[in-house]
Amino acid sequence: MAQIRKPIRSQMGWSTRDRIEVQGFDLCQDLIGHINLGDMAFLEMTGRRPTQAESTVFNAVLVTLVEHGLTPMALATRLTYLGAPESLQGAVASGLLGMGTTFAGTTEGSARMITEALSANPATATAALAEQIVADYRASGHPIPGIGHNMHKPIDPRAERLFEVAASQGFSSRPIALMRAIAARAAHVYGRELPVNATGAIGALSCELGLDWRIARGLSVMGRAVGLVGHLMEELRNPIAPEIWLRAEEESHAHYQHQENGHADS
Amino acid sequence: MAQIRKPIRSQMGWSTRDRIEVQGFDLCQDLIGHINLGDMAFLEMTGRRPTQAESTVFNAVLVTLVEHGLTPMALATRLTYLGAPESLQGAVASGLLGMGTTFAGTTEGSARMITEALSANPATATAALAEQIVADYRASGHPIPGIGHNMHKPIDPRAERLFEVAASQGFSSRPIALMRAIAARAAHVYGRELPVNATGAIGALSCELGLDWRIARGLSVMGRAVGLVGHLMEELRNPIAPEIWLRAEEESHAHYQHQENGHADS
Amino acid sequence: MAQIRKPIRSQMGWSTRDRIEVQGFDLCQDLIGHINLGDMAFLEMTGRRPTQAESTVFNAVLVTLVEHGLTPMALATRLTYLGAPESLQGAVASGLLGMGTTFAGTTEGSARMITEALSANPATATAALAEQIVADYRASGHPIPGIGHNMHKPIDPRAERLFEVAASQGFSSRPIALMRAIAARAAHVYGRELPVNATGAIGALSCELGLDWRIARGLSVMGRAVGLVGHLMEELRNPIAPEIWLRAEEESHAHYQHQENGHADS
Amino acid sequence: MAQIRKPIRSQMGWSTRDRIEVQGFDLCQDLIGHINLGDMAFLEMTGRRPTQAESTVFNAVLVTLVEHGLTPMALATRLTYLGAPESLQGAVASGLLGMGTTFAGTTEGSARMITEALSANPATATAALAEQIVADYRASGHPIPGIGHNMHKPIDPRAERLFEVAASQGFSSRPIALMRAIAARAAHVYGRELPVNATGAIGALSCELGLDWRIARGLSVMGRAVGLVGHLMEELRNPIAPEIWLRAEEESHAHYQHQENGHADS
Repeated sequence: MAQIRKPIRSQMGWSTRDRIEVQGFDLCQDLIGHINLGDMAFLEMTGRRPTQAESTVFNAVLVTLVEHGLTPMALATRLTYLGAPESLQGAVASGLLGMGTTFAGTTEGSARMITEALSANPATATAALAEQIVADYRASGHPIPGIGHNMHKPIDPRAERLFEVAASQGFSSRPIALMRAIAARAAHVYGRELPVNATGAIGALSCELGLDWRIARGLSVMGRAVGLVGHLMEELRNPIAPEIWLRAEEESHAHYQHQENGHADS
Repeated sequence: MAQIRKPIRSQMGWSTRDRIEVQGFDLCQDLIGHINLGDMAFLEMTGRRPTQAESTVFNAVLVTLVEHGLTPMALATRLTYLGAPESLQGAVASGLLGMGTTFAGTTEGSARMITEALSANPATATAALAEQIVADYRASGHPIPGIGHNMHKPIDPRAERLFEVAASQGFSSRPIALMRAIAARAAHVYGRELPVNATGAIGALSCELGLDWRIARGLSVMGRAVGLVGHLMEELRNPIAPEIWLRAEEESHAHYQHQENGHADS
Repeated sequence: MAQIRKPIRSQMGWSTRDRIEVQGFDLCQDLIGHINLGDMAFLEMTGRRPTQAESTVFNAVLVTLVEHGLTPMALATRLTYLGAPESLQGAVASGLLGMGTTFAGTTEGSARMITEALSANPATATAALAEQIVADYRASGHPIPGIGHNMHKPIDPRAERLFEVAASQGFSSRPIALMRAIAARAAHVYGRELPVNATGAIGALSCELGLDWRIARGLSVMGRAVGLVGHLMEELRNPIAPEIWLRAEEESHAHYQHQENGHADS
Repeated sequence: MAQIRKPIRSQMGWSTRDRIEVQGFDLCQDLIGHINLGDMAFLEMTGRRPTQAESTVFNAVLVTLVEHGLTPMALATRLTYLGAPESLQGAVASGLLGMGTTFAGTTEGSARMITEALSANPATATAALAEQIVADYRASGHPIPGIGHNMHKPIDPRAERLFEVAASQGFSSRPIALMRAIAARAAHVYGRELPVNATGAIGALSCELGLDWRIARGLSVMGRAVGLVGHLMEELRNPIAPEIWLRAEEESHAHYQHQENGHADS
């Protein structure tokens, strides 16, 4: 037999014959019909139901993350569904796998940057902290997570809206202030527009809500899972994956046939 | 160049410099701060915001699907996180891949059974339809999706609660009646308790809400994505994947060492 | 404590301080440097090393499955890599998820069809068996797996080559004969060219090699995993995922901007 | 219409009516029956067939990576198959997702370390380079990839065997020498046994073979895809996933029932 080093414990949920318990609540009596999916997500992540203010802010964050149109993730989901329509879960998983450093990573990065700075220097003034952070990133050569956007200029309207919702619910403490100060300082130092973007705002709000930065990417994953199911619904009505596939294949193929016929054009 | 057979079109969303549009709504003005994640999911699947009644029922369905404790999916997610902590999206995807025919498939199956029966025989009485469906399944040798449960007897409390929520919001039309009639008829024919289970209730409710049966599995995927992020949050606080791994490996290994030492015990 | 219903046993492999055992072999002394990846795959699936003839046929099957150009799977892998370059394993997994019923399913289907027919009717003549199978499929309305191809006509050159390799190694028994007879009978009954295609040949060869039909899809998965890593190598040198993404997004977006400016063109 | 920034080109393969071309070869005439899966993988990654020496070394590397017994990845694959047996590709993908920084990342790390050191300092003596690398890692606080093993001491037999195979085929140039020198220097500086391990040897050999370090993780993915199909074959014969699941669930559940009955034991 195997040695037992530690017991297997989980407090997420369990069932008996006539009762299903989730996070210490009775699923049927306390949750079904009384709580929305966003609040359920908060409960899963924190072990308690959100206050009204937390619910508003947390749902605002998740709603921001659901849909961004024909992203690489949405295309991967649709192309995978074409090959394995029996396995919708595989198509959604395929798209989620693209929620990596390029996209979701910046949410994680800004949440981490803020958490570590405030925890290491609780007594330092926000402006001084921002100055130090920007200097450190500049010296390292790495980009500062959560600021700047190639399309949304001079501001990212999602960031402004998220900060507005947070303020209306009483969330405007140091994480948001620090994120704003970092953006302002970076714009000054680099000499160009570098507004807080959506991922920076979400990183700051996840700190305001007390969430561990290591789970920040999970916010993107939960939101986007919803969006990718939406894309499959549209793909069912009006498939575009076959067209994307055939155009790519034919464009590449035509080039080589052309070459083989003696027309070397590149 | 590739031939163009049909245009690439998507109405899910797009962005310009100062505006993000999702399903025809202004994301910042109409949705962030005004809608919860469950209603956003409804919008993604149908192209319109739910009524209050639809919101209550749809969120009830999703909330039911989030958490079932230490399922095979939750274990896969935790084990994958152990190997690739840099890629939280991969750990969630790993668990979602187990939402197949064994679990989520029965939601899909019951939604399909109800949709096809009501669409092929709109004028047949519910009892007669149920009788025919049970007879057909019995002849085929396949189990009827959405009825019976190995633990929750004589009723599945989630199914009863979901039907109660639906009735309170005015959803009690033919899909629910047919699902109940099938369960009653099957119990009679097979001579044992076969209550509508949670997946049967969800299949019926997704028909009540007018959703395509081919996307029913997507409800499970959206709900469970939330739950699997929750499991990773617990795994961060109290890891159990290393223990599960080491026990399995050692138990198997000990057996073979024992054999090699001359003690062939199986 | 949990009840123990059955012991956890695996014979795949284990390690001690100075020895790694795989399938009963010493990995370092018996396998590394002595066996190629295809033969290792055979060992993993059967628990023994292949004969020279089995090695030739099994590697031929796997090699056939590696590369098919810019398939939906290859595109999904490349698009996922764009979003999560830190997680190459996620990009390959994303593409593998499209190896479903549309593509790999026909290998599984033909292996199953042949296995079940020969096991249920060992004494029936091949021609009579083929006649019955074609009649059954025709009555059911389902397509016969493993025959016909939309591009490769009148023959699929891969199928002919695989049968040729099999024959050269002494594999030409009932599975291959039955697969050929089914194709011939179907062509006669349906009145059009329906040659054995690559997936039909691979299904037949996996029966010749004694593999369980339930693992036939695994042959596709192993081969294609190799091919998808190859696509990532090319994507590193010459990225096409960004271009595929931007073209799709812009084509869809341009349409809606056009409409919003008063030009409703569809 | 979308703007075209660059053409879509791939040289991996394409098909016409009677010919399938892969990497410039005729699949049926040149590859099927003439090449094993490992050599096909080399062709996919480099665009050319390996020499005999390259084939021996490259296959040795891949064979090393196939099987490690009941790893977290193998468990994830088996648990996923339990939930979605219709989707073998999903079960393999689920396991591959665990090939992240904890395991495959060290192959990537050692390949990168060697490539960058030799490319930045081609004229520096190996011993001096190793000294500098160990000093840099020590200052950074990060572990050196590819050395040390918690079980295989004082040497990792796979590393020694891989170097032996490489030497027998004429591959013993600077990457291997540098990897060995780093391990020797680290053992000296840290004052404990830190032999080159299997991932360090594979990182060095992938440099000897001229492979880009960014694709080194792909070697693990290709090898392990084969191994995970093997685990599913064993799971079909002798399922252990249900037992692992039920034990975990019951152990956790029993604890809470015990607590609810007034016996708070932890």
